[in-house]
Amino acid sequence: MFQTFAAQTTPEQGPPRLKALRAQMQTAGVDAFIVPRADAHQGEYVAPRDARLAWLTGFSGSAGFCAVLPDIAGVFIDGRYRVQVRAEVADAFTPVHWPETQLADWVMDHLPKGAVIGFDPWLHSAQEIASLTKKLRAYDLRATDNLVDAIWHDQPPAPSSPFLVQPIEFAGEPHTEKRIRIADTLTADTAVITLPDSIAWLLNIRGTDIARNPVPQAFAILHATGMVDLFAGTGKADGIRDHLGPDVQLHDVSAFLGHIARLSGPVQIDPKTCPDIVAQTLIRTGAEAKHCPDPCLLPKAIKNAAEIAGAKTAHHRDGIAMVRFLAWLDTEAPKGALTEIDVVTALEGFRAQTNALRDISFETISGAGPNAAIVHYRVNENTNRAVNPGELLLVDSGGQYVDGTTDITRTIAIGTPTEDHRQCYTRVLQGMIAISRIRFPKGVGGQHLDALARAPLWLAGQDYDHGTGHGVGSYLSVHEGPQGISRRSEVALEAGMILSNEPGYYREGAFGIRIENLITVIPALALPGADARDMLGFDTLTYVPLDRRLIDTSLLANAERDWIDQYHTDTVALLASHLDATTCAWLEAACAPL
Amino acid sequence: MFQTFAAQTTPEQGPPRLKALRAQMQTAGVDAFIVPRADAHQGEYVAPRDARLAWLTGFSGSAGFCAVLPDIAGVFIDGRYRVQVRAEVADAFTPVHWPETQLADWVMDHLPKGAVIGFDPWLHSAQEIASLTKKLRAYDLRATDNLVDAIWHDQPPAPSSPFLVQPIEFAGEPHTEKRIRIADTLTADTAVITLPDSIAWLLNIRGTDIARNPVPQAFAILHATGMVDLFAGTGKADGIRDHLGPDVQLHDVSAFLGHIARLSGPVQIDPKTCPDIVAQTLIRTGAEAKHCPDPCLLPKAIKNAAEIAGAKTAHHRDGIAMVRFLAWLDTEAPKGALTEIDVVTALEGFRAQTNALRDISFETISGAGPNAAIVHYRVNENTNRAVNPGELLLVDSGGQYVDGTTDITRTIAIGTPTEDHRQCYTRVLQGMIAISRIRFPKGVGGQHLDALARAPLWLAGQDYDHGTGHGVGSYLSVHEGPQGISRRSEVALEAGMILSNEPGYYREGAFGIRIENLITVIPALALPGADARDMLGFDTLTYVPLDRRLIDTSLLANAERDWIDQYHTDTVALLASHLDATTCAWLEAACAPL
Repeated sequence: MFQTFAAQTTPEQGPPRLKALRAQMQTAGVDAFIVPRADAHQGEYVAPRDARLAWLTGFSGSAGFCAVLPDIAGVFIDGRYRVQVRAEVADAFTPVHWPETQLADWVMDHLPKGAVIGFDPWLHSAQEIASLTKKLRAYDLRATDNLVDAIWHDQPPAPSSPFLVQPIEFAGEPHTEKRIRIADTLTADTAVITLPDSIAWLLNIRGTDIARNPVPQAFAILHATGMVDLFAGTGKADGIRDHLGPDVQLHDVSAFLGHIARLSGPVQIDPKTCPDIVAQTLIRTGAEAKHCPDPCLLPKAIKNAAEIAGAKTAHHRDGIAMVRFLAWLDTEAPKGALTEIDVVTALEGFRAQTNALRDISFETISGAGPNAAIVHYRVNENTNRAVNPGELLLVDSGGQYVDGTTDITRTIAIGTPTEDHRQCYTRVLQGMIAISRIRFPKGVGGQHLDALARAPLWLAGQDYDHGTGHGVGSYLSVHEGPQGISRRSEVALEAGMILSNEPGYYREGAFGIRIENLITVIPALALPGADARDMLGFDTLTYVPLDRRLIDTSLLANAERDWIDQYHTDTVALLASHLDATTCAWLEAACAPL
Repeated sequence: MFQTFAAQTTPEQGPPRLKALRAQMQTAGVDAFIVPRADAHQGEYVAPRDARLAWLTGFSGSAGFCAVLPDIAGVFIDGRYRVQVRAEVADAFTPVHWPETQLADWVMDHLPKGAVIGFDPWLHSAQEIASLTKKLRAYDLRATDNLVDAIWHDQPPAPSSPFLVQPIEFAGEPHTEKRIRIADTLTADTAVITLPDSIAWLLNIRGTDIARNPVPQAFAILHATGMVDLFAGTGKADGIRDHLGPDVQLHDVSAFLGHIARLSGPVQIDPKTCPDIVAQTLIRTGAEAKHCPDPCLLPKAIKNAAEIAGAKTAHHRDGIAMVRFLAWLDTEAPKGALTEIDVVTALEGFRAQTNALRDISFETISGAGPNAAIVHYRVNENTNRAVNPGELLLVDSGGQYVDGTTDITRTIAIGTPTEDHRQCYTRVLQGMIAISRIRFPKGVGGQHLDALARAPLWLAGQDYDHGTGHGVGSYLSVHEGPQGISRRSEVALEAGMILSNEPGYYREGAFGIRIENLITVIPALALPGADARDMLGFDTLTYVPLDRRLIDTSLLANAERDWIDQYHTDTVALLASHLDATTCAWLEAACAPL
């Protein structure tokens, strides 16, 4: 079982550690110290040794930071964590609403000018520090050792498990070719790459350093020749030397900064993700730094034929597990004895039975009734709730398979849904269908399409406070950029990109609805009467029934009704032969025409 | 009659003038000279004395420029003018596809390094010259006198007609209050304002310097105190001294640069529209220039209650003229003797009969059959075409009234339309309805809504190559920013903004369709079941029948059909009592339920 349900922190752990940190700050001669949730790779998940924020404060959320001052310690958290932070941190910490309150403004309110603010330059991006430096001109912003590490005596070691080769049948392009292809796009002599999923993609390797994301913790320097210097923990890459070949030079991670210091000529870094210490090293040595996005980001997002084929196989496998889960749920839930944790456990079990599950792709969200209205809800033993008849159950989950990463949300009626449930569900579904069906000219980006998913809700005066879709990796991070479907997503969509399509609707204290399929961008299919213009469309990867009990057909246009019926027909055609008779009968009923 | 149909230029006029200009260039010691279509105010229309591009080259389009070199003279034109430019300019000129080919790249291909490139610093924005300077580092980009003016012996004088007061009943806010309100938003001691419609709005004045746009050609310096220095041609503001009052100081336009040179402290300029000479003067005197958008742009776009009320009255008046025109067209067109020019003439006649028409708001687009597929088509005696049965007629027109500016497009079936016509028209209409009906949360901008207007066409593999909507002024420019509905429009929509809503569809060589209403952004109306969130919607200003003969009801959703029927019911209710019996009968038939 990958997912656990015990609370990992307690509020009581914080105050003595805060006291120790303040003593350490005094020794180090700093008035303030910033403790981010990040590691040196700015990933969504961190290894246990990098969970400094949770260790210090007790706050276990996936984003935020703590600013420790002599008399106040602010825990900066966004809207998702306003409630959770109060339960997790002791009174010695002060929750601060972020980004409404910015760190620099808060510091100016609480620290006299000239004060020394310490930070670990590995854990903050160059852009973050540049922006802080500009705003905090009246202060002494100073890179220091990590003062939390200095007091964390039983800090876990850095992950040491060996890197793995991602087989060419799933990667689709040898790293020899990728390296040359990306090297040709550089605008400098070298590029420093600090994002583990970029390195994983570039070299066709994976790792188990971090839960949920199969990325290798490493740094790389890509040269314009296509050669790569790879910096990893001792021994971690030993087993893949043959795979890497002679054009990838292995170094211990401790040699990374030294190499950076010896780079001459222009060096490309991505200021949004590159650790500040790299940028500072280049400044110190006088090497010209060119700021541009990580050169792997866009190429990685555009999947090749093997990656798309792998995604289809992975979704087929995952779909079978999901259908078995939904059939089980329909039998068990009416008995009235299920809890949210039971749901998570059962679902992971069905996925595990595929015998191909490497990991879940994120902590399953299983929210019943009002818990489903908490968008980033993660059930634990304290919040666990019965799944009651008359309520909606929202299950957002995914698997990591060697051939692909899945991410699916289904909202299921337990017992008889209300009219309100059905109308809201139908509007969310109409938005999901609008994205699934649309075709659009090249050049259009996710920021332009987002409203199509929201229009049915908007017309009813409703909306949801998250993006409609995020990029998804190929047996990599379940959230990857730069593609997306949201008002903040600014890149044009390109054939091969994989995205989620997940509109929702949430009524606080009552219920939550989200429906999510993964989709790939494809050249639009031929259509009689179409203009001679380059258009793109979406192909659906996820085939798992939508809850017919929640669909109000009176709200649907014919084209929407046809889309649902076709989707269900395709689902049966794809999955039926892989199911036992009982599950198959359930599937056929669940997929009957509207 | 405002509109004329005789060609204003001939290709033959160009070569001798080009020769004279080259001689003048030699005298002035420059190797190249740039002749833009712009005046010092970067407006969409220019006064005759500023029509240097047309005078020199014969090209009469509304955008473009000529780069005159010793051996080649490039006329840079965008996609709209590829065909027109070939008919209008002689072989001595070389059409260049712009923006595909950028001026700087073209210059580098045709001029040796070190060459002197002259330009008139009044006619180019600071940003334009800054960008050129950066790209043409190897050249000597040099501000000079205007070399075209030097050889244009019968150049018309600058417009001299007096400025007019815009009555407070239509402006809605005294300029005393506007000046203080805008001054309070400045981030500098003074702001230089060079856009005539900003000055018109700020001071509640209008002018007749330019055809179609009732703006006063002037410059202004707004001080943080709310005081204004207004620079205008001799005597032009004499009649409005009382209106301007003591806090607006009048100066002759010749004193403008001298005042700029004497400004100390930070000065706010809008580099996108401010003449380069203003920016250069500030650099020369060492005054700090702050680059930010013209401070009037956004406040002007957000209309007050009086402006909205005026817009409604103007649209009501204009709607009566449009209905009389459409009824006339339905009687006359079947006789088969109408031409595109007849249509323009008749329509302007109906508008003139309102006795309130100050000007047309742009040259009426009257395109029959394939001419309607030319998006910026302007009929003249050479292109004039019969309006034939079996074709579609596209009429895009508007009026300038003291209480508001109108802009409306209707596409009308002449005789019996084809199935193809009806399906395409219906899709365009569905897009127009989608925008009209939508409600959306605050923060959403036109770039997010644009796809809603296109989705019905996209789903059929079709699209149109222009924005869905532009901002519209209050008895000011029919095209105004910053609001818009297009992928390039980046400002959030705010209650009070007026926009056009004009999707279209064009099949080259065959037909063109566009349907355009003006709409205002309003707080969304109350709706049962709506979330407690701030949402906006649109209120329609334009009420004129849509051609029922072109609507394929089988493609419509119920909500779309209901919208059309309600729109037609409202149109009859609004206009019927103002029409003679025959026209009223026509209107009622045209507005019958689908």
